[in-house]
Amino acid sequence: MCRADRIGGAGVSEAALSAALEALVPALDRLRAACDGGTLPMITIAGHTDDLAAITETAARLAARCADVLVLGTGGSSLGGRCFCALGRDPTAPRLHFFENVDPDGFEDALDGVDLARAGLLIVSKSGATAETLALAFALLPRLADARGAETLAEVTAVITDPTGTGGTPSPLRALAADMGLPILDHPPAIGGRFAGLTTVGLLPASLAGIRPQEVRAGAAGVVDTLMGEGPPADIPPALGAALTVAIARERGLTQSVMMPYPARLKPFADWHRQLWAESLGKDAHATTPIAAQGTVDQHSQLQLWLDGPADKLFTLIFGRTRGSGPSIAPPAAAGGGLDWLRGRRMGDLLVASQAATRDTLTAKGRPVRVIEVARADGRTLGALMMHFMVETILAGDLLGVDPFGQPAVEAGKALARQSLAAMAQESDAAKGRDEDGPP
Amino acid sequence: MCRADRIGGAGVSEAALSAALEALVPALDRLRAACDGGTLPMITIAGHTDDLAAITETAARLAARCADVLVLGTGGSSLGGRCFCALGRDPTAPRLHFFENVDPDGFEDALDGVDLARAGLLIVSKSGATAETLALAFALLPRLADARGAETLAEVTAVITDPTGTGGTPSPLRALAADMGLPILDHPPAIGGRFAGLTTVGLLPASLAGIRPQEVRAGAAGVVDTLMGEGPPADIPPALGAALTVAIARERGLTQSVMMPYPARLKPFADWHRQLWAESLGKDAHATTPIAAQGTVDQHSQLQLWLDGPADKLFTLIFGRTRGSGPSIAPPAAAGGGLDWLRGRRMGDLLVASQAATRDTLTAKGRPVRVIEVARADGRTLGALMMHFMVETILAGDLLGVDPFGQPAVEAGKALARQSLAAMAQESDAAKGRDEDGPP
Repeated sequence: MCRADRIGGAGVSEAALSAALEALVPALDRLRAACDGGTLPMITIAGHTDDLAAITETAARLAARCADVLVLGTGGSSLGGRCFCALGRDPTAPRLHFFENVDPDGFEDALDGVDLARAGLLIVSKSGATAETLALAFALLPRLADARGAETLAEVTAVITDPTGTGGTPSPLRALAADMGLPILDHPPAIGGRFAGLTTVGLLPASLAGIRPQEVRAGAAGVVDTLMGEGPPADIPPALGAALTVAIARERGLTQSVMMPYPARLKPFADWHRQLWAESLGKDAHATTPIAAQGTVDQHSQLQLWLDGPADKLFTLIFGRTRGSGPSIAPPAAAGGGLDWLRGRRMGDLLVASQAATRDTLTAKGRPVRVIEVARADGRTLGALMMHFMVETILAGDLLGVDPFGQPAVEAGKALARQSLAAMAQESDAAKGRDEDGPP
Repeated sequence: MCRADRIGGAGVSEAALSAALEALVPALDRLRAACDGGTLPMITIAGHTDDLAAITETAARLAARCADVLVLGTGGSSLGGRCFCALGRDPTAPRLHFFENVDPDGFEDALDGVDLARAGLLIVSKSGATAETLALAFALLPRLADARGAETLAEVTAVITDPTGTGGTPSPLRALAADMGLPILDHPPAIGGRFAGLTTVGLLPASLAGIRPQEVRAGAAGVVDTLMGEGPPADIPPALGAALTVAIARERGLTQSVMMPYPARLKPFADWHRQLWAESLGKDAHATTPIAAQGTVDQHSQLQLWLDGPADKLFTLIFGRTRGSGPSIAPPAAAGGGLDWLRGRRMGDLLVASQAATRDTLTAKGRPVRVIEVARADGRTLGALMMHFMVETILAGDLLGVDPFGQPAVEAGKALARQSLAAMAQESDAAKGRDEDGPP
């Protein structure tokens, strides 16, 4: 589906694609040099194995002691782990519960059914100062200490945070964990949260869920091998992807980019990609909005808009290879003749028919579609998908002229929230002062 | 937040808003006349109670016999029920599991931990011909019959489908359920799936989850009372909402509309709204794309794009009123002074500080923001929110000149999928014919 001549009227012109590919030649050289020079560790980590023992040992320690592990983290500290945990559960593995929001009702709902006396805690924050993650930790640590005994805390807890500090400020979480004797694993200092899916941040939850980190890294390494080879951009899938998506968005004035996996286990991958694309490229007026969707579900929610609404979207569909698999979906004999089209079919046949129908109706309407087919939604595939889209995003940033790293705009909001909390504290103190003065 | 003079530079001009409100005067008259004439039952249902006994009796029958109820349905047959089930679980209520996708892996994952010998089935399809829902039913009915005994099936099952047929074709699901003796409840014929949240479709799952249908209808009825009163559009919140959203999108060239609830229990509401807006209005080049988001989570995923990317989005933030509630998030004594801003605070304080910070950073950047504050995320609130946004969407359709009912564009895809399955059957038959001829 990537060759321009197959996309036809719904695609990008040869001229625009060629120009983007040509612009990627020096970009690709820079990227390869940066990898060789060790300044893009989120890519070169694919070939590393020296950190895997600490990951699998920590996972084994927690799994031996915990039926449930509560994972506290937000954004990049959560989405990578969620992706791996959705890949199917080893029945002997602990259940993972991801805590992100700080709504008190949601917090209690998420604890429903969790026996804290058999639970563990994984606290993930690169800066160690993320308000939601600290709040969740401070709410849960006393409860866990009550349920398991304070002396057990170090056995059922792990903390992932930056060893060097962020923006000159050391991680408060690290200091606290050290003081409390909680085991600490390093968040690689030079890898931002949304690029951390293939580091300890994603692979410790993966390992807890029974996904082998070695497999994930091997999947990613396959993408890096092609990237670091001699090939021109057109032969490097993530480079071709960056050229296609940027060129087509420019040429056709697209403002939105839909990522729609059909394999159910890849649903969180669309959310992971949504953060990756938005935070990396949302820095100038040309950034497209990434939209996470889900097959077959969104055929019954969004497809009407995609077909008959504005022609402002690019579609990346991830297909499963499920023909002939799954349970029989044949109608019972009582169903009569109207449902004959389901006769003799299996569930995987319907998935295959549905994904093809979506591709064909979108292209028939002139909507640009890219299809990625995966043989299996497993750790190796997810490692490859993550690496593909990290490289595609970095190269797209080069084409768009934006720095894909950092997220400068959100710092102001974080400062505002802290100020607002500090003001609440002052109000409380003032009220307490009035109370201590006695009622009038 | 709705008054134009408070929105200031980030909002809509008085002139554009006035023009939209004026255009809504006849639209509102038509809507009121249609309600009086009984042709908009998705609105007037708010005042009905005659269908509630069947809903609560069916829920009681299933709850008495089932620890888990599997809800089969997609789009509007699923999203309303999901909204209610997220409102917090009565610990005595059965667990609900929503099945939508037909990926075989996802299907098995969803059954993980469900004891079919104690499970029930709720099958929801207005047309009775939705491929995914039929496939899921045909995969599960034999398993449930095996686990519970075929003679028990009628006791632990319910079917919701149209009594009159859709587009001239009677519901195949209805015929089959009648033949198998499965209890059937009517999907109101004149209410499309995405408008069916306040009918049996949404309220049977609500009732199963322990949410009282009467409360939901009462919340919706409050919105309808204001709508049917004498007031001008500016005094009717959903009319003002329609005028604001359409006028601001036109005037500022917005292409996207973000719905971001902060109360965790309203997360599925954003997905419900996403379908409502997309399928109702996605019928011409002016439709905005609805984007479901989640506070505080998407502050760490999308906010960078929203602040520094293109100014092409309108934001509707739903705030919780959680100040002073929830567990303590005070740092332990060991944390030192750097986290003093969390001292004395509760989790709900951080939610309040975060939502205000998002509103303020967005408006400081000139992004248009609408805020809806809810006292509690309960059945009454959700009934009111659903009715508000159904009316807002219908009136927005009037302003945009599109028919908000029907979803004509997706039929072609459904036909394609059926043809593709029928072709697979023919291939299988042909292969079987070859097999029967014997190997060459």
